[in-house]
Amino acid sequence: MKEITIIKIGGKVLEDDRRLARALEDFARVDGPKILVHGGGKRSDELCLQLGIEPRMVEGRRITDAATLEVVTMVYAGLLNKKVTGLLQSFGCNAIGLSGADGNVILAHKRAKGDIDYGFAGDIDAVSAPMLDKLLEAGLTPVLCSITHDGKGQLLNTNADTIATVTAIAMATHYDTTLKFCFEKNGVLSDPGDETSVIARLDQVDYARYRQNGVINAGMVPKIDNALNAQKGGVAKVWICGVGAIAPEAAQTGTEICL
Amino acid sequence: MKEITIIKIGGKVLEDDRRLARALEDFARVDGPKILVHGGGKRSDELCLQLGIEPRMVEGRRITDAATLEVVTMVYAGLLNKKVTGLLQSFGCNAIGLSGADGNVILAHKRAKGDIDYGFAGDIDAVSAPMLDKLLEAGLTPVLCSITHDGKGQLLNTNADTIATVTAIAMATHYDTTLKFCFEKNGVLSDPGDETSVIARLDQVDYARYRQNGVINAGMVPKIDNALNAQKGGVAKVWICGVGAIAPEAAQTGTEICL
Repeated sequence: MKEITIIKIGGKVLEDDRRLARALEDFARVDGPKILVHGGGKRSDELCLQLGIEPRMVEGRRITDAATLEVVTMVYAGLLNKKVTGLLQSFGCNAIGLSGADGNVILAHKRAKGDIDYGFAGDIDAVSAPMLDKLLEAGLTPVLCSITHDGKGQLLNTNADTIATVTAIAMATHYDTTLKFCFEKNGVLSDPGDETSVIARLDQVDYARYRQNGVINAGMVPKIDNALNAQKGGVAKVWICGVGAIAPEAAQTGTEICL
Repeated sequence: MKEITIIKIGGKVLEDDRRLARALEDFARVDGPKILVHGGGKRSDELCLQLGIEPRMVEGRRITDAATLEVVTMVYAGLLNKKVTGLLQSFGCNAIGLSGADGNVILAHKRAKGDIDYGFAGDIDAVSAPMLDKLLEAGLTPVLCSITHDGKGQLLNTNADTIATVTAIAMATHYDTTLKFCFEKNGVLSDPGDETSVIARLDQVDYARYRQNGVINAGMVPKIDNALNAQKGGVAKVWICGVGAIAPEAAQTGTEICL
């Protein structure tokens, strides 16, 4: 089975030009087929404020009204996606930036109104592994931003960790898939105040214990849940790690998530 | 020789949701391989003003400082490119939105400072016909916005008419290529006040005469020059026409440009 690496980089690394360039230079050196997924970061909040739109978050998820959807489409699919793509090109990686509408790679539906109306938030229905394969076979490296579409002309805002997870599961049917959630810490920490306390391996039993004793807090829970979902969906290797672990020589650092 | 159709739509049609949807529905019905190129429109000017950036134009070309480059990248490559792509998907056309950085399809260099410093304006060095071919062969319809890159990580702002021209010339080496510049009028008019006075065929002799007697004015000159350049570069058929001429049943309306 061929191998593929799917790397998700978070908002914080996108906010620091030097760290971003280094992360992308490392990513360009990763061997074999690969896909990059990137989040948004503060820039869309800043632009919302500049335009007089109040950013609203509930439980870490953005409430996306029509004006906010325009802002995140501009920032995620325009500014950040093209910046990342242009930098990857400069490092010799033939990147192609994509929203879910491009090549119909990610089809989603508008989240149903429950207690909270998330607005134009998209829950994923399908990731097109065949289309991603065609792009990979053309020598391209897909760079996915967190904008999806419903196939009826409506763009939707979708969580980037979820996009990385569902994309990895779609590719895992025919690739030996490694998924890495890279963020500002070096992994899941057993002592939140100590950057060196990275848990090397985290299984469900440990996870339950750490949640109970408060070592793993609310912010980490959705990320670890995504990681566990990826494993349940057939992704061979899943890591939560620092941006430094993108470099091939540091590939085995961070927290390996094990069912 | 296979046929390809390259359609450029201007800013004005992008500003009117109903006209845009109709134009894209027509484009989706165009048979065979095709590429769409779109301009920017007023939205980037509006966003500049909202952000306190003064839009500056010299001879119809934007002066692109760093802040303006961010705005046009957000509006062209983000908002408009993804809106167009999402709408085309809804009409059954498997569109893929691209800046020049994506797949390295358009390489440019920053325009040298002359009497005027255009800032981050890009003059095109190469359009990658092989990469566009790979995308077309994958069943995709490229949708090019007017952002290019220099291969060194710098995005650049490039005139959309020029992108359409150079792309058509690149494809003309191995396609029987039709290029249409679609704008708000029905073609080149012999009486600027009369929308029905469309010149059916315009050759260089007529063009020189119309310029001399003032029938063709400054605004049309760069468009016609691009059209003539396309023909000189080997593009089989070049039209300047209305958005209505995108529809296959109206394909022979507008002004045909002949060397």
